[in-house]
Amino acid sequence: MSDGRMRLGLFLQGAGHHVAGWRHPEAQSGGENLPLIRRITETAEAGKFDLVFLADGLTTGTDAHPSTVARLEPLVMLSALAMATRRIGLAATASTTYGEPFHVARVFASLDHVSGGRAAWNAVTTSYARSAANFSRGEHPPHDERYAIAEEFLHVVRGLWDSFDDGAIIQDKASGHYVRQGAIHTLDHVGKYFSVKGPLNVSRPPQGHPVVIQAGSSAPGQRLAARSADVVFTAQQTLEEGRAFTQGLKRQVREAGRSSEEVLVMPGLCPVIGSTEAEARALYAELQGGIDPAAAIRLLSDRLGHDVSGYDLDGPLPELPDSDQLQSRARLLTDLARKQQLSLRELYYLVAGARGHRIVWGTPVQVADALEEWFRAGAADGFNIMPPFFPTQFERFVDGVLPILRERGLFRSDYEGETLRENLGLPRPAGRQAGWRVTA
Amino acid sequence: MSDGRMRLGLFLQGAGHHVAGWRHPEAQSGGENLPLIRRITETAEAGKFDLVFLADGLTTGTDAHPSTVARLEPLVMLSALAMATRRIGLAATASTTYGEPFHVARVFASLDHVSGGRAAWNAVTTSYARSAANFSRGEHPPHDERYAIAEEFLHVVRGLWDSFDDGAIIQDKASGHYVRQGAIHTLDHVGKYFSVKGPLNVSRPPQGHPVVIQAGSSAPGQRLAARSADVVFTAQQTLEEGRAFTQGLKRQVREAGRSSEEVLVMPGLCPVIGSTEAEARALYAELQGGIDPAAAIRLLSDRLGHDVSGYDLDGPLPELPDSDQLQSRARLLTDLARKQQLSLRELYYLVAGARGHRIVWGTPVQVADALEEWFRAGAADGFNIMPPFFPTQFERFVDGVLPILRERGLFRSDYEGETLRENLGLPRPAGRQAGWRVTA
Repeated sequence: MSDGRMRLGLFLQGAGHHVAGWRHPEAQSGGENLPLIRRITETAEAGKFDLVFLADGLTTGTDAHPSTVARLEPLVMLSALAMATRRIGLAATASTTYGEPFHVARVFASLDHVSGGRAAWNAVTTSYARSAANFSRGEHPPHDERYAIAEEFLHVVRGLWDSFDDGAIIQDKASGHYVRQGAIHTLDHVGKYFSVKGPLNVSRPPQGHPVVIQAGSSAPGQRLAARSADVVFTAQQTLEEGRAFTQGLKRQVREAGRSSEEVLVMPGLCPVIGSTEAEARALYAELQGGIDPAAAIRLLSDRLGHDVSGYDLDGPLPELPDSDQLQSRARLLTDLARKQQLSLRELYYLVAGARGHRIVWGTPVQVADALEEWFRAGAADGFNIMPPFFPTQFERFVDGVLPILRERGLFRSDYEGETLRENLGLPRPAGRQAGWRVTA
Repeated sequence: MSDGRMRLGLFLQGAGHHVAGWRHPEAQSGGENLPLIRRITETAEAGKFDLVFLADGLTTGTDAHPSTVARLEPLVMLSALAMATRRIGLAATASTTYGEPFHVARVFASLDHVSGGRAAWNAVTTSYARSAANFSRGEHPPHDERYAIAEEFLHVVRGLWDSFDDGAIIQDKASGHYVRQGAIHTLDHVGKYFSVKGPLNVSRPPQGHPVVIQAGSSAPGQRLAARSADVVFTAQQTLEEGRAFTQGLKRQVREAGRSSEEVLVMPGLCPVIGSTEAEARALYAELQGGIDPAAAIRLLSDRLGHDVSGYDLDGPLPELPDSDQLQSRARLLTDLARKQQLSLRELYYLVAGARGHRIVWGTPVQVADALEEWFRAGAADGFNIMPPFFPTQFERFVDGVLPILRERGLFRSDYEGETLRENLGLPRPAGRQAGWRVTA
């Protein structure tokens, strides 16, 4: 972050982030609505956002948030969007628990090629135990084991990305050499969870390695991020917590032998924007009024990892055992409920807004102030913007908030580089040519 | 095939189909060369081809064909091409041995949505045993077991595609119902190889089911195709064999209770085109002259499933045990060598041309004649065109051969429908609404 500017991602959800956002008269929605998602992405690129980000899940979330009912597979969606855009980063979620390192390495390397170096992988361990039933698995691995698998998975994927030296494919018609001799390497990985020989059948990505994002904020999640991630998404409610998390993570990054500037922390933020503060408050109230209480309780149960539908809505959050599925997100909510003495109803209103992420309502100036305050305090390197609904609320952010941030020297007027790494200010990983066994 | 017209697919290979095609002065190549592949696809669409087809493998084929050294993951490639095209079908290969039905169902459903109903899945069992080492598997399953897995895999994928009723997502702002009640169904599949609960988290594809292609010509491959495929790719060298295969398969289709018009048989064909027959022969000789004999022997060994590098090049094909990897393709080659008494050198020249597929060289009229003869004789419903190199040899096919086929009433002048199924004349599968357990 040596240029003193914040990074911005757009967290794309087909039905918006507020659980009832899609019901707003201005809202358009659909996780499979390519024209809408294309329009939003083009708006983000016109605004010089660093990236658009697609979350994902491996079950239908019919009981929780409309954005999770149906959504196109993120790599398919982003490969299509790669053709409609030129500079914006394209970040997709893929699971380390229900995928194969070879496939994951390959699709992200492929997206990096198709997009000219704009791919990012949000590596997740898949929270929901019900996912196992879609993958012929008897059991969902417990939380800490999922992170141990993820660490090895990431190691294998990074190794596979280095299968080809840069410039390995020479296509020399005269000599008949399609590939430079000795430029393709096996990985020969044999570990606890994976055995992957390699090489990958895609040449080295334009970025060397696509950008790796990590979004778990539990202790194992932070350790993994400190060792392996380029960008960290997180949910933080207060400035103090945000600063403690960001500074704590940067310390772990340095302890892992990396520079703290090599990892960017980007908390989620849901901006509810009006021309006046009163208009923004009224909009937020209108959104909250659209919530179906039964659906909100299902969503809250989903985020807590425990069914809370039987409890008194105006009573306190009941005592719950730790969730093995959603450690950091569930803890964020339970801590918040205890500290602010929220009733179950207040807590589900909060979750309905942005699933535990920070919500800011106000004028464009007030939203810009909120971003600036955290950025200057070292609580964030940037933000993952989560509009309550699309497309108008996002357009108000781009048209209203970004010019103010630019005036203050806090956000770019144009892209600095060609690749996502260049725009994020992250180094291109060197290949591992030396010492590898040569197979071709 | 009630309209009396042949179907045409373009078999896209980054380095062309002839093993030395990429060395031709006019050739451009690269399995990761998006601008080239986009140009070729646009040419195919301008020619009103039914589809472009991407083969795939899960290892680097550095020892065999330059097209297999590095190639972008097919779904990523086709999702990008979906944005550059409007009507042509987009067919990708995905393995039933090294994939998960949930992922495969989802990516093809997603491609079908992104392309407006133009997706096709070439379901393969993955021939090469060396693939196992990239997927933490000790053993590559034997041939017949791979087909048993494939059959169950296909059943699950088709079931998952029916998870949502057509029109399930209603987004009714007034009532707050995002999804129509009772319109999303679990699959609850429990089989020998897979347990998949569902529902899929993608709504029903525009085509109902993306087109399913099968490319194995062994007995289990034909049985699978007869029960489950919409299109069959095959390699056939002579008219008699082509007719026997096509008519035999159609008989099996009828025995499986389907109409023989519901399955289209499309053999591969490599057209080497010149302005005169002499020019075409000279071009073919030039291509054959570019072959590196050591590489050709590796390619032949690869296709036979046995290393033949130690044998006398001018002697006959040695006796070889059956290959468990490549049953039908290896048998095609060994049968051909025996019948035509080919030396090892002659056999590798043949394989170098189009890997065992039929090669036709001549003028545009001669190529059109060759297509017409097989089509009228019932040896093919259409062809999978395999140009020896790109882009000029393919452009000669589109500009030279297609007008002749049109004159003869054998090929369309414009697309008949919007979706690939409509253009192929295949019915849209009904959903399975009745009798399924309702979950939402």
